[in-house]
Amino acid sequence: MSAHSFGSDNHSGGHPEVIEAVLAANEGHAPGYGADPWTARVEELFREHLGPQASAFVVFNGSGANVAALRALGRPYDAVICPASAHLNVDECGAPERIAGVKLLTAECPDGKLTPELAESRITGVGDEHAVQPRIISISQSTELGTVYEPSEIAALAELAHEREMLLHIDGARLCNAAASLGVELRELVTDVGVDALSFGGTKNGLLLGEAVVLMRPEHAADFRFLRKQTLQLASKMRFISAQLEALLGGDLWLRAAGNANRMAGRLGAAIEALDGATLAHPVQANGVFAWLPDPAIDGLLETMPGDPPFHRWPSSERVEGSSLIRLLCSWDTSEADVDELAGAIADCLG
Amino acid sequence: MSAHSFGSDNHSGGHPEVIEAVLAANEGHAPGYGADPWTARVEELFREHLGPQASAFVVFNGSGANVAALRALGRPYDAVICPASAHLNVDECGAPERIAGVKLLTAECPDGKLTPELAESRITGVGDEHAVQPRIISISQSTELGTVYEPSEIAALAELAHEREMLLHIDGARLCNAAASLGVELRELVTDVGVDALSFGGTKNGLLLGEAVVLMRPEHAADFRFLRKQTLQLASKMRFISAQLEALLGGDLWLRAAGNANRMAGRLGAAIEALDGATLAHPVQANGVFAWLPDPAIDGLLETMPGDPPFHRWPSSERVEGSSLIRLLCSWDTSEADVDELAGAIADCLG
Amino acid sequence: MSAHSFGSDNHSGGHPEVIEAVLAANEGHAPGYGADPWTARVEELFREHLGPQASAFVVFNGSGANVAALRALGRPYDAVICPASAHLNVDECGAPERIAGVKLLTAECPDGKLTPELAESRITGVGDEHAVQPRIISISQSTELGTVYEPSEIAALAELAHEREMLLHIDGARLCNAAASLGVELRELVTDVGVDALSFGGTKNGLLLGEAVVLMRPEHAADFRFLRKQTLQLASKMRFISAQLEALLGGDLWLRAAGNANRMAGRLGAAIEALDGATLAHPVQANGVFAWLPDPAIDGLLETMPGDPPFHRWPSSERVEGSSLIRLLCSWDTSEADVDELAGAIADCLG
Amino acid sequence: MSAHSFGSDNHSGGHPEVIEAVLAANEGHAPGYGADPWTARVEELFREHLGPQASAFVVFNGSGANVAALRALGRPYDAVICPASAHLNVDECGAPERIAGVKLLTAECPDGKLTPELAESRITGVGDEHAVQPRIISISQSTELGTVYEPSEIAALAELAHEREMLLHIDGARLCNAAASLGVELRELVTDVGVDALSFGGTKNGLLLGEAVVLMRPEHAADFRFLRKQTLQLASKMRFISAQLEALLGGDLWLRAAGNANRMAGRLGAAIEALDGATLAHPVQANGVFAWLPDPAIDGLLETMPGDPPFHRWPSSERVEGSSLIRLLCSWDTSEADVDELAGAIADCLG
Repeated sequence: MSAHSFGSDNHSGGHPEVIEAVLAANEGHAPGYGADPWTARVEELFREHLGPQASAFVVFNGSGANVAALRALGRPYDAVICPASAHLNVDECGAPERIAGVKLLTAECPDGKLTPELAESRITGVGDEHAVQPRIISISQSTELGTVYEPSEIAALAELAHEREMLLHIDGARLCNAAASLGVELRELVTDVGVDALSFGGTKNGLLLGEAVVLMRPEHAADFRFLRKQTLQLASKMRFISAQLEALLGGDLWLRAAGNANRMAGRLGAAIEALDGATLAHPVQANGVFAWLPDPAIDGLLETMPGDPPFHRWPSSERVEGSSLIRLLCSWDTSEADVDELAGAIADCLG
Repeated sequence: MSAHSFGSDNHSGGHPEVIEAVLAANEGHAPGYGADPWTARVEELFREHLGPQASAFVVFNGSGANVAALRALGRPYDAVICPASAHLNVDECGAPERIAGVKLLTAECPDGKLTPELAESRITGVGDEHAVQPRIISISQSTELGTVYEPSEIAALAELAHEREMLLHIDGARLCNAAASLGVELRELVTDVGVDALSFGGTKNGLLLGEAVVLMRPEHAADFRFLRKQTLQLASKMRFISAQLEALLGGDLWLRAAGNANRMAGRLGAAIEALDGATLAHPVQANGVFAWLPDPAIDGLLETMPGDPPFHRWPSSERVEGSSLIRLLCSWDTSEADVDELAGAIADCLG
Repeated sequence: MSAHSFGSDNHSGGHPEVIEAVLAANEGHAPGYGADPWTARVEELFREHLGPQASAFVVFNGSGANVAALRALGRPYDAVICPASAHLNVDECGAPERIAGVKLLTAECPDGKLTPELAESRITGVGDEHAVQPRIISISQSTELGTVYEPSEIAALAELAHEREMLLHIDGARLCNAAASLGVELRELVTDVGVDALSFGGTKNGLLLGEAVVLMRPEHAADFRFLRKQTLQLASKMRFISAQLEALLGGDLWLRAAGNANRMAGRLGAAIEALDGATLAHPVQANGVFAWLPDPAIDGLLETMPGDPPFHRWPSSERVEGSSLIRLLCSWDTSEADVDELAGAIADCLG
Repeated sequence: MSAHSFGSDNHSGGHPEVIEAVLAANEGHAPGYGADPWTARVEELFREHLGPQASAFVVFNGSGANVAALRALGRPYDAVICPASAHLNVDECGAPERIAGVKLLTAECPDGKLTPELAESRITGVGDEHAVQPRIISISQSTELGTVYEPSEIAALAELAHEREMLLHIDGARLCNAAASLGVELRELVTDVGVDALSFGGTKNGLLLGEAVVLMRPEHAADFRFLRKQTLQLASKMRFISAQLEALLGGDLWLRAAGNANRMAGRLGAAIEALDGATLAHPVQANGVFAWLPDPAIDGLLETMPGDPPFHRWPSSERVEGSSLIRLLCSWDTSEADVDELAGAIADCLG
């Protein structure tokens, strides 16, 4: 066990209410592969949150959710338009290409946010058999750079997608953080703005593990269980994942957990912004803080801070001489003391 | 929550010692993706059980373990020889073909056990560019039909494989059951008999979820972490799976849990064998009992027994007029009372 | 250049009328990728032969035709039922699995012919997410063993397929030989008996190279050009393949070429049948003769006959002590003298 | 048959010497799948041109050559760095991703030419299991934009590749045009500058169809025939493709054909450059001319010029108000009269 780390929101453990739900689910026998009451309740909870058309399928992890969702939405010659910074593009070891077989058409996006204009610039070759057919727009909400799409921004992307006979997918590994940040219900970021498919994240928001693919159109949901199985994402003792998702979505844990992470990131961002020699790279709108720091300060922090590692240098297409970008992520369990300790350490290293 | 079921060994929950390990792992922060001390200890435990050449990689589920292992062992034009009854062949929704890209060359095997003769019959077309190249022999230990390979039987398959420049893979979703049945150490079924790669099962033996791919040759292990990630089997909060595997393998829980399941299957098999009108289809050597029963008796049992479902009719290439094959699996938590209740019910329905 | 060979019907060259068509097509410029008048005429010829619903797509080779057709017909979790002797299964180096991603469910078929009963035995697991979903029945006409399906036999397979919401595909690398053998029009083997997709063979029937995928349902044809391109089967100077297919199908060359090959095989089969020590393994119904001969006679023939090789030993699941199965294929250009020379040589070696 | 077109170098037909070679190859029988003397001579010719380490494999088309070559060079988690304008990236309908399973890491390249600096900018994530591993650098020679790499420029890319344990692949669909342009032997663009694998183009340089994959390292060549077959690129009557390649490479046809195309492009480029209102977009170094013309002039030309189509508008990341980019390709059979007619028509439409 390590000290508090800002290295990732997956360095934290399971929220006590999640643990309690796992313990409660561990009584007696239950049918496998999702034919259990916990899973039934999770499916119902997704309908409550997102509307009756939402078909939820519990899966193991975020890459699995994304790849399975893309397999459901695309034909073999379809392509996915996404930001160059998308998890799909940089953090899934080519699984979208090798496992889902799709080509990604990426756009460099300021603050990690795709716009209709940027998306449209990648819609080319429609009807040309030599070209992949742009079919899916995929965005991360909140983004990989800690920013958040307004509902109207998502709606504009959905409108573009549907005008062009395309579909909108959200990588929602941190969807709860976005909703908490905007003060909206989950449905306002999904159903109400025309999203067609969602990878819903639980792991980064207090679960031990567990995500869900949520399909908003019956034609994609009809046979998705075959794709989930074939994509190696079908849990046999599914109740133990479903119980966690039930704990998250049955009350307001999703909001409390994400809200705390966001508030701590806000506190950290404000503290860093106040320091001479540190610069925020992106607005702090969810649970991530991206900041430029001089390399000696970063090296000092990495040596002296606890956490294994305390945080990561982060790749950037920008270059700032003598400085590097660092990423700091807050979790459901990050405390004000954790933030203040880090902020103090940064100040010391800068000073 | 349902009553005790013999429908599958994944209808049971988590063993108390496994649960305790998860709770203990839930303290503070830990690095993601396996860079945590629980995972390091699990890797060490596999080396203790299987020898220093064993490289273990924690994954989510059995299909994931199998598919990732086959991806590591085979070239794009390689084929896998396996029994027709293999989980790979009948229970993975075509993932070996679609995701790993391999062709399966199946053999009808009595009692689900491949022999060198049967395997050799599928080694054809070697060096012929029109044919897939047989490269991997894959067997399940214990088998899908509840039987067990003797160490010498595995050694003979390994010898054939290596003589023909092939590799031997074990789908060990129930490896512990086989070891418990034979009264041997795990290494006697793997390392000592020349196995090249292993899918090690935890879920069916008392874990909430969790398996491992164990690669015995450094050339396969070297870059396997890329394949695990790309095969969508890399857990971010891996400590929570590793802690469970540590609970299983750190002491003798693997043996106690599997041993109980085996003993209960033996008790159930003996009781069924003694009944007029019921016939065992295969020797009861691990935790599964396969029996032919008259259809009216089966229908009666399905109506009256608790469990959801209490058991499954099982496909068979044999046909017995008016009867069906049923599969009954025992778990780490099956009790003598559970067995006796079922045996009594069967007797009633037959009577 | 070698002497006449019975090793394969692809050892022969191009028919003079085919060559003439290539020469005639080589005038001036023409648009690429099928937007040329030769290709338009071939598409029209397929509609004339097979009906207005036939959408033909010119491709390079037979494996390409088969794999592209299967990609068009199947969903990612679909399986193909075919004879164990199918070209798909034994002669395409795993391309159906690796490139099309489908699982083949094979049946041992006497004389290489699938029956509804045999096909039905492989329809299992329907609706079960753990199992591939049987979706396509694929047969070769004429078969890999030189036999021919009657139209009624194909109709029965189509009826089964459609009853079970499946599709019927014909690997017609030698469809013309079957039609010539039965004295029927091509449509009687395709359109009139409910075939859904066809790989139409030209190469083995007098072309230099060239095949076509013919899709009988608009939902498969609509976007097939994307799949053809992605399956690497889109010729840029397509006119030179289309001109050959036009030569084949525009008049009765398809029938004359295949008819000659069939007659020569009939003559060869009759001669062999009359010999002591030689046994026909299958009825001679198209252009192939399969015969059991004593190994010394085979070795003698391989030494003394011209052709490189003159013929091939052929794998068989049967074993005849001291004998091997050989395959002898006749071509559009096989002459009576060629046949009689071979028959004489066999007699000599047996004598 | 259409009039002369500048729409593509695949609108031309077969060179008379190529046709003659096909006719000469059409005598008697020959073994299939490349076991014929024409193919043996082609393999030898590639060794003569490129050195004894060159292993050549005849294939059908350029996409097939590229995809099969990438399959030979890359591990499942490897990525290919290439210009955004690469044929691989924009003209192969996602086959590199779906069929070869590789991710393309593209760079915007002035004049379509990758530099070591641009390539290096895409080498990221090495050793990180979350990222694809950059493994292959692929360039087109001549480029998709009609420019040519100097041997030293290729050598610099090879040096970078080898320093980083990567490999250099050339898409040489127009390699002969580059060699003719530079006045060098083929080996000076391949062997002498460290290229590891080559897709060699014949179709655009006077063949009816036919390309070759040439592998310069024995470890890639050893089993490539399995990959060629599985990638659906194994011709049965291969002699008819090999005879064409023999005609091309056995004497100086490769140089004469490409040289004519280049000269005509040079003449056309010079004529266009001299016109008011037309601007060359890229240096004319091979057989392609890329020019910006006012849209009304383009529309006029498309209406009045023969050819079906006479040329194509071409996508560009640049935008010039009121103008479009057009691509004009010359062939082995383009004459000065063809060029002068087009140049005159352009002048008329501009005037």
